[in-house]
Amino acid sequence: MLGTGAVGRAVAGRLDDLGHDLTMATRDLAATAGREEHTSWAEAHADVRLVPFAGSADGADLVVNALGGDIALGVLDEVGPDLVGRVLLDLSNPLDHGHGFPPRLFVKDDDSFAEQVQRAHPEALVVKTLNTMNNTVMVDPGRLGESTTVFVSGDEPSAKATVTALLRELGHTDVIDLGGLETARGPEMFLALWVRTAVALGGSDFNIKVVRGPSLPA
Amino acid sequence: MLGTGAVGRAVAGRLDDLGHDLTMATRDLAATAGREEHTSWAEAHADVRLVPFAGSADGADLVVNALGGDIALGVLDEVGPDLVGRVLLDLSNPLDHGHGFPPRLFVKDDDSFAEQVQRAHPEALVVKTLNTMNNTVMVDPGRLGESTTVFVSGDEPSAKATVTALLRELGHTDVIDLGGLETARGPEMFLALWVRTAVALGGSDFNIKVVRGPSLPA
Repeated sequence: MLGTGAVGRAVAGRLDDLGHDLTMATRDLAATAGREEHTSWAEAHADVRLVPFAGSADGADLVVNALGGDIALGVLDEVGPDLVGRVLLDLSNPLDHGHGFPPRLFVKDDDSFAEQVQRAHPEALVVKTLNTMNNTVMVDPGRLGESTTVFVSGDEPSAKATVTALLRELGHTDVIDLGGLETARGPEMFLALWVRTAVALGGSDFNIKVVRGPSLPA
Repeated sequence: MLGTGAVGRAVAGRLDDLGHDLTMATRDLAATAGREEHTSWAEAHADVRLVPFAGSADGADLVVNALGGDIALGVLDEVGPDLVGRVLLDLSNPLDHGHGFPPRLFVKDDDSFAEQVQRAHPEALVVKTLNTMNNTVMVDPGRLGESTTVFVSGDEPSAKATVTALLRELGHTDVIDLGGLETARGPEMFLALWVRTAVALGGSDFNIKVVRGPSLPA
Protein backbone atom coordinates (compact mmCIF):
# COMPACT_ATOMS: atom_id res chain seq x y z
CA MET A 1 0.00 0.00 0.00
CA LEU A 2 1.58 3.20 -1.19
CA GLY A 3 0.21 5.99 0.94
CA THR A 4 -0.74 6.31 4.59
CA GLY A 5 -3.55 8.83 4.35
CA ALA A 6 -7.22 8.17 5.02
CA VAL A 7 -7.64 6.18 1.79
CA GLY A 8 -4.51 4.11 2.37
CA ARG A 9 -5.52 3.31 5.94
CA ALA A 10 -9.07 2.36 4.93
CA VAL A 11 -8.04 0.03 2.13
CA ALA A 12 -5.00 -1.42 3.90
CA GLY A 13 -7.04 -1.99 7.04
CA ARG A 14 -9.74 -3.82 5.16
CA LEU A 15 -7.22 -5.94 3.22
CA ASP A 16 -5.55 -6.81 6.51
CA ASP A 17 -8.91 -7.78 8.00
CA LEU A 18 -9.51 -10.00 4.97
CA GLY A 19 -6.29 -11.84 5.76
CA HIS A 20 -4.00 -10.38 3.12
CA ASP A 21 -0.31 -9.97 3.88
CA LEU A 22 0.69 -6.40 3.23
CA THR A 23 3.00 -3.55 4.07
CA MET A 24 2.28 0.15 4.08
CA ALA A 25 4.84 2.41 2.47
CA THR A 26 5.62 6.00 3.38
CA ARG A 27 8.42 8.53 2.96
CA ASP A 28 9.30 9.21 6.55
CA LEU A 29 8.67 6.20 8.83
CA ALA A 30 9.10 8.11 12.07
CA ALA A 31 6.85 10.98 11.00
CA THR A 32 4.07 8.65 9.86
CA ALA A 33 4.38 6.40 12.91
CA GLY A 34 4.11 9.47 15.13
CA ARG A 35 0.87 10.76 13.63
CA GLU A 36 -2.09 10.20 15.93
CA GLU A 37 -4.40 8.96 13.17
CA HIS A 38 -1.76 6.38 12.24
CA THR A 39 -1.11 5.27 15.79
CA SER A 40 -4.71 4.35 16.47
CA TRP A 41 -4.96 2.61 13.11
CA ALA A 42 -1.72 0.70 13.71
CA GLU A 43 -2.98 -0.66 17.02
CA ALA A 44 -5.81 -2.40 15.15
CA HIS A 45 -3.46 -3.60 12.41
CA ALA A 46 -0.32 -4.57 14.25
CA ASP A 47 0.85 -7.01 11.58
CA VAL A 48 0.97 -4.38 8.83
CA ARG A 49 4.58 -3.18 8.76
CA LEU A 50 5.42 0.39 7.87
CA VAL A 51 8.22 0.45 5.24
CA PRO A 52 9.97 3.08 3.09
CA PHE A 53 8.85 3.56 -0.51
CA ALA A 54 12.09 2.19 -2.00
CA GLY A 55 11.86 -1.59 -2.08
CA SER A 56 8.26 -1.65 -0.87
CA ALA A 57 6.90 -3.33 -4.00
CA ASP A 58 9.54 -6.06 -4.05
CA GLY A 59 7.77 -9.41 -4.02
CA ALA A 60 4.27 -7.92 -3.99
CA ASP A 61 1.47 -9.56 -5.96
CA LEU A 62 -0.32 -6.26 -6.08
CA VAL A 63 0.70 -2.64 -5.46
CA VAL A 64 -1.95 -0.08 -4.55
CA ASN A 65 -1.45 3.58 -5.36
CA ALA A 66 -3.42 5.42 -2.69
CA LEU A 67 -1.28 8.54 -2.90
CA GLY A 68 -2.48 12.00 -3.76
CA GLY A 69 -2.44 12.48 -7.52
CA ASP A 70 -0.12 15.46 -7.10
CA ILE A 71 2.69 13.40 -5.54
CA ALA A 72 2.10 9.90 -6.87
CA LEU A 73 4.34 10.07 -9.96
CA GLY A 74 7.29 11.17 -7.86
CA VAL A 75 6.74 8.42 -5.31
CA LEU A 76 6.31 5.78 -7.99
CA ASP A 77 9.72 6.79 -9.33
CA GLU A 78 11.15 6.03 -5.88
CA VAL A 79 9.48 2.61 -5.92
CA GLY A 80 10.90 2.26 -9.40
CA PRO A 81 12.09 -1.06 -10.83
CA ASP A 82 10.11 -3.13 -8.32
CA LEU A 83 6.98 -2.22 -10.30
CA VAL A 84 8.08 -4.19 -13.37
CA GLY A 85 5.56 -6.92 -14.12
CA ARG A 86 3.42 -6.10 -11.10
CA VAL A 87 -0.26 -5.26 -10.94
CA LEU A 88 -0.54 -1.60 -9.98
CA LEU A 89 -4.01 -0.70 -8.74
CA ASP A 90 -4.39 3.05 -9.17
CA LEU A 91 -7.24 4.57 -7.19
CA SER A 92 -5.99 8.15 -7.12
CA ASN A 93 -7.56 11.21 -8.71
CA PRO A 94 -5.59 13.93 -10.53
CA LEU A 95 -6.83 16.73 -8.33
CA ASP A 96 -5.63 20.27 -8.87
CA HIS A 97 -6.36 22.19 -5.67
CA GLY A 98 -4.70 25.35 -6.96
CA HIS A 99 -7.96 27.09 -7.89
CA GLY A 100 -10.00 26.66 -4.71
CA PHE A 101 -13.01 24.43 -4.33
CA PRO A 102 -14.15 22.36 -6.10
CA PRO A 103 -10.80 21.05 -7.31
CA ARG A 104 -10.06 20.83 -11.02
CA LEU A 105 -8.24 17.98 -12.75
CA PHE A 106 -4.64 18.45 -13.84
CA VAL A 107 -5.11 15.90 -16.62
CA LYS A 108 -8.33 14.98 -18.46
CA ASP A 109 -10.14 14.38 -21.72
CA ASP A 110 -7.20 13.64 -24.04
CA ASP A 111 -5.18 11.85 -21.36
CA SER A 112 -5.62 10.51 -17.85
CA PHE A 113 -3.57 10.13 -14.72
CA ALA A 114 -3.64 6.35 -15.07
CA GLU A 115 -2.10 6.67 -18.53
CA GLN A 116 0.59 9.01 -17.17
CA VAL A 117 1.46 6.37 -14.58
CA GLN A 118 1.55 3.69 -17.27
CA ARG A 119 3.83 5.75 -19.52
CA ALA A 120 6.18 6.42 -16.60
CA HIS A 121 6.22 2.68 -15.78
CA PRO A 122 5.60 0.87 -19.06
CA GLU A 123 6.21 -2.56 -17.55
CA ALA A 124 3.78 -2.15 -14.66
CA LEU A 125 0.30 -3.59 -15.17
CA VAL A 126 -1.77 -0.52 -14.34
CA VAL A 127 -5.46 -0.96 -13.49
CA LYS A 128 -7.62 2.05 -12.67
CA THR A 129 -10.47 1.45 -10.27
CA LEU A 130 -12.23 2.61 -7.09
CA ASN A 131 -11.52 6.32 -7.66
CA THR A 132 -15.26 7.02 -8.11
CA MET A 133 -16.24 6.66 -4.45
CA ASN A 134 -15.02 7.61 -1.00
CA ASN A 135 -12.85 5.25 1.02
CA THR A 136 -15.67 4.09 3.30
CA VAL A 137 -17.64 2.91 0.29
CA MET A 138 -14.55 1.47 -1.41
CA VAL A 139 -14.02 -1.06 1.32
CA ASP A 140 -17.64 -1.66 2.35
CA PRO A 141 -20.01 -1.06 -0.56
CA GLY A 142 -22.61 -3.18 1.20
CA ARG A 143 -23.21 -0.28 3.59
CA LEU A 144 -25.25 1.35 0.81
CA GLY A 145 -27.92 -1.33 1.09
CA GLU A 146 -27.97 -2.27 -2.57
CA SER A 147 -25.51 -3.20 -5.27
CA THR A 148 -23.65 -0.25 -6.81
CA THR A 149 -21.11 -0.04 -9.61
CA VAL A 150 -17.33 0.05 -9.73
CA PHE A 151 -15.35 0.48 -12.96
CA VAL A 152 -12.07 -1.09 -14.05
CA SER A 153 -9.80 0.09 -16.86
CA GLY A 154 -6.54 -1.49 -17.94
CA ASP A 155 -4.60 -2.88 -20.86
CA GLU A 156 -3.74 -6.27 -19.35
CA PRO A 157 -6.68 -8.67 -18.92
CA SER A 158 -4.95 -10.82 -16.29
CA ALA A 159 -4.24 -7.75 -14.17
CA LYS A 160 -7.88 -6.68 -14.43
CA ALA A 161 -8.92 -10.19 -13.39
CA THR A 162 -6.70 -9.98 -10.31
CA VAL A 163 -8.13 -6.59 -9.39
CA THR A 164 -11.70 -7.68 -10.08
CA ALA A 165 -11.27 -10.63 -7.73
CA LEU A 166 -10.06 -8.24 -5.04
CA LEU A 167 -13.00 -5.90 -5.66
CA ARG A 168 -15.38 -8.82 -5.18
CA GLU A 169 -13.62 -9.66 -1.91
CA LEU A 170 -14.30 -6.09 -0.80
CA GLY A 171 -17.98 -6.65 -1.55
CA HIS A 172 -18.33 -5.10 -5.00
CA THR A 173 -20.87 -7.07 -7.02
CA ASP A 174 -21.26 -4.91 -10.16
CA VAL A 175 -17.83 -4.50 -11.77
CA ILE A 176 -17.91 -2.91 -15.23
CA ASP A 177 -14.81 -3.53 -17.32
CA LEU A 178 -14.61 -0.37 -19.43
CA GLY A 179 -11.76 -1.65 -21.60
CA GLY A 180 -8.19 -0.47 -22.05
CA LEU A 181 -6.44 2.03 -19.79
CA GLU A 182 -7.54 4.93 -22.02
CA THR A 183 -11.03 4.41 -20.61
CA ALA A 184 -9.76 5.63 -17.21
CA ARG A 185 -10.44 9.12 -18.58
CA GLY A 186 -14.12 8.43 -17.92
CA PRO A 187 -13.99 7.54 -14.21
CA GLU A 188 -11.38 10.24 -13.59
CA MET A 189 -13.55 12.96 -15.18
CA PHE A 190 -16.49 11.67 -13.14
CA LEU A 191 -14.78 13.27 -10.15
CA ALA A 192 -16.23 16.61 -11.29
CA LEU A 193 -19.76 15.24 -10.85
CA TRP A 194 -18.90 13.24 -7.74
CA VAL A 195 -17.62 16.23 -5.79
CA ARG A 196 -20.63 18.39 -6.71
CA THR A 197 -23.02 15.59 -5.81
CA ALA A 198 -21.28 15.27 -2.43
CA VAL A 199 -21.80 19.00 -1.83
CA ALA A 200 -25.47 18.77 -2.83
CA LEU A 201 -26.12 15.72 -0.62
CA GLY A 202 -24.12 17.04 2.33
CA GLY A 203 -21.66 14.15 2.39
CA SER A 204 -19.83 11.57 0.33
CA ASP A 205 -21.44 8.39 1.63
CA PHE A 206 -22.87 7.41 -1.75
CA ASN A 207 -22.03 5.59 -4.93
CA ILE A 208 -23.55 5.35 -8.37
CA LYS A 209 -25.35 2.30 -9.68
CA VAL A 210 -25.54 1.84 -13.42
CA VAL A 211 -29.16 0.76 -13.92
CA ARG A 212 -29.59 -1.13 -17.20
CA GLY A 213 -32.71 -0.90 -19.36
CA PRO A 214 -34.48 -3.67 -21.23
CA SER A 215 -32.93 -2.96 -24.64
CA LEU A 216 -29.35 -3.64 -23.57
CA PRO A 217 -27.87 -6.93 -24.76
CA ALA A 218 -28.00 -9.52 -21.98
CA MET B 1 -37.97 22.96 -28.95
CA LEU B 2 -34.76 24.05 -30.62
CA GLY B 3 -33.51 21.14 -32.69
CA THR B 4 -35.20 18.46 -34.76
CA GLY B 5 -32.74 15.62 -34.32
CA ALA B 6 -33.37 12.40 -32.43
CA VAL B 7 -33.22 14.14 -29.04
CA GLY B 8 -35.50 16.99 -30.12
CA ARG B 9 -38.05 14.57 -31.57
CA ALA B 10 -37.99 12.34 -28.48
CA VAL B 11 -38.47 15.17 -25.98
CA ALA B 12 -40.91 17.20 -28.13
CA GLY B 13 -42.94 14.08 -28.84
CA ARG B 14 -43.22 13.23 -25.18
CA LEU B 15 -44.11 16.80 -24.20
CA ASP B 16 -46.79 16.79 -26.90
CA ASP B 17 -48.14 13.48 -25.59
CA LEU B 18 -48.27 15.03 -22.12
CA GLY B 19 -50.49 17.79 -23.48
CA HIS B 20 -47.99 20.64 -23.69
CA ASP B 21 -48.39 23.22 -26.43
CA LEU B 22 -45.13 23.50 -28.33
CA THR B 23 -43.40 24.31 -31.57
CA MET B 24 -40.27 22.77 -33.01
CA ALA B 25 -37.70 25.15 -34.47
CA THR B 26 -35.28 24.44 -37.29
CA ARG B 27 -33.17 26.35 -39.80
CA ASP B 28 -34.67 25.10 -43.07
CA LEU B 29 -38.34 24.21 -42.72
CA ALA B 30 -38.60 22.49 -46.10
CA ALA B 31 -35.45 20.43 -45.57
CA THR B 32 -36.53 19.27 -42.12
CA ALA B 33 -40.11 18.56 -43.23
CA GLY B 34 -38.77 16.46 -46.10
CA ARG B 35 -36.60 14.20 -43.95
CA GLU B 36 -38.10 10.74 -43.60
CA GLU B 37 -37.43 10.51 -39.85
CA HIS B 38 -39.25 13.80 -39.38
CA THR B 39 -42.21 12.87 -41.58
CA SER B 40 -43.05 9.75 -39.61
CA TRP B 41 -42.61 11.65 -36.33
CA ALA B 42 -44.80 14.53 -37.57
CA GLU B 43 -47.66 12.17 -38.42
CA ALA B 44 -47.83 11.17 -34.75
CA HIS B 45 -47.50 14.79 -33.59
CA ALA B 46 -49.60 16.74 -36.08
CA ASP B 47 -50.25 19.65 -33.72
CA VAL B 48 -46.55 20.45 -33.23
CA ARG B 49 -45.79 23.18 -35.76
CA LEU B 50 -42.40 23.45 -37.41
CA VAL B 51 -41.12 27.06 -37.22
CA PRO B 52 -37.89 28.92 -38.05
CA PHE B 53 -35.42 29.67 -35.25
CA ALA B 54 -36.01 33.43 -35.35
CA GLY B 55 -39.08 34.23 -33.28
CA SER B 56 -39.51 30.64 -32.09
CA ALA B 57 -39.07 31.47 -28.40
CA ASP B 58 -41.51 34.39 -28.47
CA GLY B 59 -44.18 33.72 -25.85
CA ALA B 60 -42.68 30.43 -24.69
CA ASP B 61 -42.76 29.49 -21.01
CA LEU B 62 -39.79 27.24 -21.60
CA VAL B 63 -37.21 26.88 -24.36
CA VAL B 64 -35.36 23.59 -24.79
CA ASN B 65 -31.91 23.49 -26.34
CA ALA B 66 -31.70 20.08 -27.97
CA LEU B 67 -29.16 21.18 -30.55
CA GLY B 68 -25.71 19.75 -31.02
CA GLY B 69 -23.25 21.53 -28.78
CA ASP B 70 -21.19 22.49 -31.82
CA ILE B 71 -23.99 24.59 -33.39
CA ALA B 72 -26.11 25.62 -30.41
CA LEU B 73 -24.44 28.96 -29.65
CA GLY B 74 -24.91 30.13 -33.24
CA VAL B 75 -28.56 29.07 -33.28
CA LEU B 76 -29.24 30.72 -29.92
CA ASP B 77 -27.94 33.96 -31.42
CA GLU B 78 -30.58 33.62 -34.13
CA VAL B 79 -33.27 33.11 -31.48
CA GLY B 80 -31.77 36.11 -29.77
CA PRO B 81 -33.82 38.64 -27.81
CA ASP B 82 -36.77 36.26 -27.37
CA LEU B 83 -34.68 34.41 -24.78
CA VAL B 84 -34.73 37.33 -22.33
CA GLY B 85 -36.38 36.29 -19.08
CA ARG B 86 -37.21 32.79 -20.35
CA VAL B 87 -36.30 29.45 -18.85
CA LEU B 88 -33.75 27.83 -21.16
CA LEU B 89 -33.41 24.11 -20.52
CA ASP B 90 -30.03 23.06 -21.89
CA LEU B 91 -29.64 19.33 -22.42
CA SER B 92 -26.79 19.44 -24.94
CA ASN B 93 -23.25 18.16 -24.52
CA PRO B 94 -20.15 20.03 -25.71
CA LEU B 95 -18.93 17.19 -27.91
CA ASP B 96 -15.78 17.59 -29.96
CA HIS B 97 -15.88 14.91 -32.67
CA GLY B 98 -12.67 16.14 -34.28
CA HIS B 99 -10.46 13.45 -32.72
CA GLY B 100 -12.41 10.30 -33.55
CA PHE B 101 -14.23 8.16 -31.03
CA PRO B 102 -14.89 8.60 -28.18
CA PRO B 103 -15.58 12.32 -28.55
CA ARG B 104 -13.78 14.82 -26.36
CA LEU B 105 -15.34 17.91 -24.77
CA PHE B 106 -14.62 21.32 -26.26
CA VAL B 107 -15.18 22.95 -22.88
CA LYS B 108 -14.70 21.42 -19.40
CA ASP B 109 -13.26 21.68 -15.91
CA ASP B 110 -12.81 25.46 -15.60
CA ASP B 111 -15.94 26.26 -17.64
CA SER B 112 -18.97 24.47 -19.10
CA PHE B 113 -21.15 24.73 -22.14
CA ALA B 114 -24.09 25.79 -19.99
CA GLU B 115 -22.04 28.70 -18.66
CA GLN B 116 -21.07 29.68 -22.21
CA VAL B 117 -24.75 29.79 -23.13
CA GLN B 118 -25.51 31.86 -20.03
CA ARG B 119 -22.74 34.36 -20.81
CA ALA B 120 -23.98 34.70 -24.39
CA HIS B 121 -27.55 35.27 -23.11
CA PRO B 122 -27.20 36.82 -19.66
CA GLU B 123 -30.93 37.45 -19.29
CA ALA B 124 -31.98 33.88 -20.11
CA LEU B 125 -32.63 31.59 -17.14
CA VAL B 126 -30.37 28.69 -18.09
CA VAL B 127 -30.90 25.31 -16.41
CA LYS B 128 -28.69 22.36 -17.27
CA THR B 129 -30.29 18.95 -17.03
CA LEU B 130 -30.94 15.62 -18.78
CA ASN B 131 -27.60 15.56 -20.62
CA THR B 132 -26.47 12.51 -18.62
CA MET B 133 -28.71 9.95 -20.36
CA ASN B 134 -29.91 9.03 -23.83
CA ASN B 135 -33.16 10.43 -25.20
CA THR B 136 -35.15 7.24 -24.61
CA VAL B 137 -34.32 7.37 -20.92
CA MET B 138 -34.81 11.17 -20.75
CA VAL B 139 -38.48 10.87 -21.63
CA ASP B 140 -39.26 7.50 -20.04
CA PRO B 141 -36.98 6.81 -17.08
CA GLY B 142 -39.52 4.31 -15.79
CA ARG B 143 -38.35 1.90 -18.49
CA LEU B 144 -35.31 1.17 -16.30
CA GLY B 145 -37.48 -0.52 -13.71
CA GLU B 146 -36.25 1.49 -10.75
CA SER B 147 -35.74 5.12 -9.81
CA THR B 148 -32.58 6.69 -11.27
CA THR B 149 -31.06 10.13 -10.90
CA VAL B 150 -31.22 13.32 -12.93
CA PHE B 151 -29.24 16.46 -12.06
CA VAL B 152 -30.19 20.12 -12.36
CA SER B 153 -27.84 23.12 -12.29
CA GLY B 154 -28.84 26.76 -12.59
CA ASP B 155 -28.51 30.16 -10.98
CA GLU B 156 -32.24 30.98 -10.78
CA PRO B 157 -34.25 28.90 -8.27
CA SER B 158 -37.62 29.58 -9.92
CA ALA B 159 -36.28 28.35 -13.27
CA LYS B 160 -34.97 25.20 -11.62
CA ALA B 161 -38.37 24.68 -9.99
CA THR B 162 -40.07 24.95 -13.40
CA VAL B 163 -37.63 22.46 -14.93
CA THR B 164 -37.89 20.11 -11.96
CA ALA B 165 -41.68 20.03 -12.30
CA LEU B 166 -41.26 19.12 -15.97
CA LEU B 167 -38.75 16.39 -15.09
CA ARG B 168 -41.24 14.90 -12.66
CA GLU B 169 -43.89 14.94 -15.40
CA LEU B 170 -41.48 12.94 -17.55
CA GLY B 171 -41.22 10.38 -14.75
CA HIS B 172 -38.02 11.43 -13.00
CA THR B 173 -38.34 10.80 -9.28
CA ASP B 174 -34.80 11.51 -8.02
CA VAL B 175 -33.84 15.05 -9.02
CA ILE B 176 -30.61 16.30 -7.44
CA ASP B 177 -30.22 20.09 -7.43
CA LEU B 178 -26.45 20.50 -7.70
CA GLY B 179 -26.54 24.26 -7.16
CA GLY B 180 -25.58 27.15 -9.42
CA LEU B 181 -24.89 26.88 -13.12
CA GLU B 182 -21.17 26.34 -12.47
CA THR B 183 -22.10 22.87 -11.24
CA ALA B 184 -23.05 21.94 -14.83
CA ARG B 185 -19.34 21.18 -15.26
CA GLY B 186 -19.99 17.95 -13.35
CA PRO B 187 -22.78 16.45 -15.47
CA GLU B 188 -21.07 17.63 -18.66
CA MET B 189 -17.78 15.94 -17.75
CA PHE B 190 -19.74 12.80 -16.86
CA LEU B 191 -20.19 12.35 -20.61
CA ALA B 192 -16.67 10.87 -20.69
CA LEU B 193 -17.78 8.06 -18.38
CA TRP B 194 -21.23 7.74 -19.96
CA VAL B 195 -19.90 7.08 -23.44
CA ARG B 196 -17.37 4.51 -22.25
CA THR B 197 -20.00 2.76 -20.15
CA ALA B 198 -22.26 2.60 -23.23
CA VAL B 199 -19.45 0.95 -25.18
CA ALA B 200 -18.80 -1.54 -22.40
CA LEU B 201 -22.49 -2.41 -22.00
CA GLY B 202 -23.18 -2.54 -25.74
CA GLY B 203 -25.82 0.19 -25.70
CA SER B 204 -26.96 3.39 -24.04
CA ASP B 205 -30.20 2.18 -22.45
CA PHE B 206 -29.06 2.92 -18.91
CA ASN B 207 -28.89 5.65 -16.32
CA ILE B 208 -27.08 6.15 -13.06
CA LYS B 209 -28.74 6.07 -9.69
CA VAL B 210 -27.06 7.87 -6.83
CA VAL B 211 -27.39 5.39 -3.97
CA ARG B 212 -27.13 7.11 -0.59
CA GLY B 213 -25.52 5.55 2.45
CA PRO B 214 -26.64 5.69 6.06
CA SER B 215 -24.32 8.49 7.16
CA LEU B 216 -25.75 11.10 4.80
CA PRO B 217 -27.97 13.74 6.39
CA ALA B 218 -31.63 12.90 5.85
